[in-house]
Amino acid sequence: MNPQYSSKLSQFLFLLLAISILISCGSPQEKSPTTSGNLEATENSQDNLSSWEDGPKNKIMDWVKSTTTEGSTEFIPEKDRIAVFDNDGTLWSEQPYYFQLAFAIDEVKRLAPEHPEWKNDSSLDALIKGDMAGFMAGGEKALLTAIAMTHAGMTAEEFDSRVKNWIKTATHPKTGKHYNEMIFQPMLELLQYLRANGFKTFIVSGGGIDFMRAWTEEAYGIPPYQVVGSQFGLSYVDTTASPELIKIPELFFNDDKAGKPVGIYRNIGKRPVFAGGNSDGDYQMLQYTSTGDGARFGLIVHHTDSVREVAYDRESHIGQLNKGLDDAAKYNWLIVDMAKDWKVIYPYELK
Amino acid sequence: MNPQYSSKLSQFLFLLLAISILISCGSPQEKSPTTSGNLEATENSQDNLSSWEDGPKNKIMDWVKSTTTEGSTEFIPEKDRIAVFDNDGTLWSEQPYYFQLAFAIDEVKRLAPEHPEWKNDSSLDALIKGDMAGFMAGGEKALLTAIAMTHAGMTAEEFDSRVKNWIKTATHPKTGKHYNEMIFQPMLELLQYLRANGFKTFIVSGGGIDFMRAWTEEAYGIPPYQVVGSQFGLSYVDTTASPELIKIPELFFNDDKAGKPVGIYRNIGKRPVFAGGNSDGDYQMLQYTSTGDGARFGLIVHHTDSVREVAYDRESHIGQLNKGLDDAAKYNWLIVDMAKDWKVIYPYELK
Repeated sequence: MNPQYSSKLSQFLFLLLAISILISCGSPQEKSPTTSGNLEATENSQDNLSSWEDGPKNKIMDWVKSTTTEGSTEFIPEKDRIAVFDNDGTLWSEQPYYFQLAFAIDEVKRLAPEHPEWKNDSSLDALIKGDMAGFMAGGEKALLTAIAMTHAGMTAEEFDSRVKNWIKTATHPKTGKHYNEMIFQPMLELLQYLRANGFKTFIVSGGGIDFMRAWTEEAYGIPPYQVVGSQFGLSYVDTTASPELIKIPELFFNDDKAGKPVGIYRNIGKRPVFAGGNSDGDYQMLQYTSTGDGARFGLIVHHTDSVREVAYDRESHIGQLNKGLDDAAKYNWLIVDMAKDWKVIYPYELK
Repeated sequence: MNPQYSSKLSQFLFLLLAISILISCGSPQEKSPTTSGNLEATENSQDNLSSWEDGPKNKIMDWVKSTTTEGSTEFIPEKDRIAVFDNDGTLWSEQPYYFQLAFAIDEVKRLAPEHPEWKNDSSLDALIKGDMAGFMAGGEKALLTAIAMTHAGMTAEEFDSRVKNWIKTATHPKTGKHYNEMIFQPMLELLQYLRANGFKTFIVSGGGIDFMRAWTEEAYGIPPYQVVGSQFGLSYVDTTASPELIKIPELFFNDDKAGKPVGIYRNIGKRPVFAGGNSDGDYQMLQYTSTGDGARFGLIVHHTDSVREVAYDRESHIGQLNKGLDDAAKYNWLIVDMAKDWKVIYPYELK
């Protein structure tokens, strides 16, 4: 790996490393019989915020009404209605570890038979044998290796195909659901409601841009060109009849914290008027949105529901939320209390 | 300037350097009385390719019909109808030098009174006095300085505002028209025709992404989030009540040649099915498009019209076209002969 990038990659992987104490989650439940096509089942009821309690629902709807009514002092022309959302912890769950890490772990196991040399790496060997404690004992280097082995060295189209296959088949260790069934029903409704009112919805996430693009169109109705994320190196190789883009194990762009406004500028080119996040990784994105001229809306999903999801904020190793809670009043951000404000969490609860 | 980027920046500026022998263009004609809003005047007639002769027009329309008719073996679902276009020389003129360089030159002159220290730099001093030969004698370093002084060190929003002001007022040294009046009428019609048939139109240019975004929505109907281009460094600075993105004089991404397929992947995330270019800087974009699975269309604007525009190809210092002509048959690219295939070049000819 190019040494100039390895420190950035280490930074990117630092949060992933913090999962070790959380790895011992509940045993898998039986696989859900439902398919992975979540959106279709609820599409018709998604533009009325019906899964939201009245308090936050009215705040959102009042703001949208005032910014989309011509003649209103807060009116925003349709071309400027840019809404951005974090993904992990905002549009879908992120516990007990980022779902992208679950993909890396599953892929190492799946690909192991083709790579007998991986057994020479004690951490990978532990992972292949299902010894998570042994794998995590390898620390950051072990994680970095597992990510590099599963996120680079193949064509961009092959990677896309692998993620698509994984998301169809893999299941969450605690709920037994497919990962793309663990998206948040109220947020699906919010995306749909904003689009119905002329907003363009974008994802701006620290997660891998191509990991997300493989499934966000089906899950959220957000096409690949409206997904912004962290990016690996990429090389255009023209040695065959069909030239290809090859993924390289270097971190090219880290779309987190102060990187989020930068990523917004690079891939969107307009300052958003609406932002939704859940952790301090989203602080600068929310701040950049809320300090622009004119009407703005910021929203933080607060994980308060220990029964239906997971309760965590200031002390969490994933999705830590400190500054966002401290400064919510200053920037007029709506803190969404998942336990109190959402009638349902996941789409499958509606069935 | 960060040394690790200066070689990349030099690469980006190399083509700009080649302008020196072309700088002695004709004297400015009288400024056109028309306004800069080109699109509106012709919007109603833009979806029928009326400025195209029948030969190329029928090739384009036959392909669009076969790829948008359900049941056709070449049918492309609407979500995959991604069309990409180079800008300089493809959507607007690029002679006698890239219009972005004209912006840099004009800006140095405009800003000079605020920067008395610029007189200590012999190249900048020559430029300020209108001595282009003296400025160009400074070579690459002079160009690099002029670009850095005018493209970095300000907020992203201030830069956007400067470009918008410039494009409203500056005029081309040969035609006397505003630069955004020198867009190609037949290409405007093609963009509109493709959009009317469910295609998403993107710009993928070696030009600066934020230089283009300041005016492409008005000129082409292409919003900022559908513009891909070369990018400078960018830093999120939170030291005031209103945090800002500050432009930094480092080249972050060079969206040219093999960089174009990479830029497409980074900002679009889908392999295009239609690509238009005019120079060998577009070769890899066209190749990447044309070697994907299914129906594809590649188009090269060949600058053959020495009367209405400028005739140049294999020997040109700007927009050199060699490989594209050599391999057009191999990849089934349509070579558009501007002199023969286009009834008009610029929208103002219709008035």
